[in-house]
Amino acid sequence: MHYQSFHPPVRTLMGPGPSDVSPRVLQAMARPTLGHLDPAFLHLMDEIRTLLQYAFSTGNELTMPVSAPGSAGMEACFVNLVEPGDKVIVCRNGVFGDRLRANVERIGGTAVMVDDDWGEAVDPAKVEAALRQHPDAAVVAFVHAETSTGALSDAATLTNLAHDHDCLVIMDAVTSLGGVPLLVDAWGVDAVYAGTQKCLSCTPGLSPVTFNSRAVERIRKRNSPIQSWFLDMNLVMGYWGGGAKRAYHHTAPINALYGLHESLLMLHEEKLENAWARHERHHRALKAGLESMGLAYIGTEGRRLPHLNAVAIPQGIDEARVRRRLLREYGIEIGAGLGELAGKVWRIGLMGTSCNARNVYVFLGALEAILGEMGAQVEAGRALAAARRQLEES
Amino acid sequence: MHYQSFHPPVRTLMGPGPSDVSPRVLQAMARPTLGHLDPAFLHLMDEIRTLLQYAFSTGNELTMPVSAPGSAGMEACFVNLVEPGDKVIVCRNGVFGDRLRANVERIGGTAVMVDDDWGEAVDPAKVEAALRQHPDAAVVAFVHAETSTGALSDAATLTNLAHDHDCLVIMDAVTSLGGVPLLVDAWGVDAVYAGTQKCLSCTPGLSPVTFNSRAVERIRKRNSPIQSWFLDMNLVMGYWGGGAKRAYHHTAPINALYGLHESLLMLHEEKLENAWARHERHHRALKAGLESMGLAYIGTEGRRLPHLNAVAIPQGIDEARVRRRLLREYGIEIGAGLGELAGKVWRIGLMGTSCNARNVYVFLGALEAILGEMGAQVEAGRALAAARRQLEES
Repeated sequence: MHYQSFHPPVRTLMGPGPSDVSPRVLQAMARPTLGHLDPAFLHLMDEIRTLLQYAFSTGNELTMPVSAPGSAGMEACFVNLVEPGDKVIVCRNGVFGDRLRANVERIGGTAVMVDDDWGEAVDPAKVEAALRQHPDAAVVAFVHAETSTGALSDAATLTNLAHDHDCLVIMDAVTSLGGVPLLVDAWGVDAVYAGTQKCLSCTPGLSPVTFNSRAVERIRKRNSPIQSWFLDMNLVMGYWGGGAKRAYHHTAPINALYGLHESLLMLHEEKLENAWARHERHHRALKAGLESMGLAYIGTEGRRLPHLNAVAIPQGIDEARVRRRLLREYGIEIGAGLGELAGKVWRIGLMGTSCNARNVYVFLGALEAILGEMGAQVEAGRALAAARRQLEES
Repeated sequence: MHYQSFHPPVRTLMGPGPSDVSPRVLQAMARPTLGHLDPAFLHLMDEIRTLLQYAFSTGNELTMPVSAPGSAGMEACFVNLVEPGDKVIVCRNGVFGDRLRANVERIGGTAVMVDDDWGEAVDPAKVEAALRQHPDAAVVAFVHAETSTGALSDAATLTNLAHDHDCLVIMDAVTSLGGVPLLVDAWGVDAVYAGTQKCLSCTPGLSPVTFNSRAVERIRKRNSPIQSWFLDMNLVMGYWGGGAKRAYHHTAPINALYGLHESLLMLHEEKLENAWARHERHHRALKAGLESMGLAYIGTEGRRLPHLNAVAIPQGIDEARVRRRLLREYGIEIGAGLGELAGKVWRIGLMGTSCNARNVYVFLGALEAILGEMGAQVEAGRALAAARRQLEES
């Protein structure tokens, strides 16, 4: 068999992540590898921590990137904070809510499910009812920004409810970090995990996490050992914890961390508030364009993510064919529906570097052309005009 | 606070890993990110699997890189193959042997320890005695190449012994893959995990694993659920398993996988046998040079890794100061001792791209100069001459 170096085709990533990675981040990743105990690298780790604290709006000491993708960050939160026999209120309004349940059950905990329709935000009233019904619950877990549906839940309210009932909060912020306000300290969220390949526009493979002092205390006072050696925060912090005496735990993914540093630096340069506003502004333009084509969003106005646009597939359209044509003819990737929304929605991302006017126009133009050729009633140029009007107004 | 892009200092990595990453691999990692379900990326995954099968000398279907460092690859083998209550014979002749124990115990298994002196290979006679004494053991776990000591154990013999007593074998090949013969199928090793940042000279952050049909059958017939969602091979294989219908499990570390592909391609171009011979040849040169300076290897001749040279610190030498000077004045990183060898040995790596005559000469010259200046009896130029003679002879 003959092999050769891989040269990826040129794409515009407008799915649920990964998003387009900035050339600055790609270049950073290509810099020479250092040892994981090199003084220069240890200094970089300190900067990454400070920049992550900025991104999370937190002063939490225990803030660092887990050396693996978001699902490992999720597992890190659960295996450290949940013990066998613990009862966890799990909010499920999409695919990732169900993954929370799987994590609880694999630890030997009991998951009390609070279900909401896919596409809707988590209903605080239902969570409160579950807390009243289960006064022995130890943790409330929910997804801030459901990547499978585009729903944005009210993290501050849910956290307050949990604390009123003496529960810790584990929050999935994989898709919210950098895209919408995420105020870990102001809201008091106890443990949060995120992703790098969404609104940070870094490559996938790392999961920033942050734990407040209540969470750290819970870890310290555990009755049972943490079931994962790799994700045991007591050990990980011996390396990430700072100070002169760092202890080797595992070999850090050096070059991936160069990339994360550069992407966090870009966020710091733009400023969080500006990044949030940019996502909101281009979302409105995309939405105006999509709605002018007769496409309808799922979920409820005011409870949707700006950067993950889940729209229902128009009647009679072969949705997979549309995605294939977008990819082949225009190099544009959008996301299919996941789980019970498979075949029912498209997920159009405007995340991080991918969130710009050029992508809004290119995507709307391509979709207009493809739907028109497939026989849909689409007036050429209308979506772009609507998007442009919206951008000019904002 | 003021932040700027990170520009690492120029280093020569001659520690226990990471080793110097080839510019080819660094460039591959900087290519534009694709989606994890992009047809072009799925094709790359197939190539990575085939190239990994070549590197492991195996035809195992279940061969893939875990999306996290070697310690997660280790955990993947244990959580899939060991169940609570299982008895595991754990060979410990260094730091990583003790990590095997920690993995068994965190699952709720019982680790039966077979200890050998640090620096020595695992003694098959002791393993056989343990197997006779514990006929109910389910697994034998050992480290092929102990990164903390440089000892190389006899994997074929240990695997045969385990199979004679109906045990599966879990083997740590983090530091052996690509550096010394590792014949997974010929030896019949059931589950193996490795690292990318040693003799493959890829960046750290991934852990290639391979499971044979006996191991897969054991996973299928488990009585208890796998405690990790992220590392559950049943789920991971839904994505990596090939075929047209790949199911999303987690977002793969796309760019890291570009790098792994390129490093495996380089190994395939060089051919395994040539890579092994290159490591052996430069090891002999380095050894001749070190011994001409009066430095002594730990462990037993014939049971040492060529690419991880553990030598005792000469009497009266401040070992940390030597390493600091190597780093500051020459940009050379070597490794300190770990665990009970801390302060007692240096670990000098000649792995992958770092394994070449230039590095042997530069390192010996630098060490000669530093030790001479610190008052050791070192004749200038003698080590280089010895190394050069050795290289010319081989």
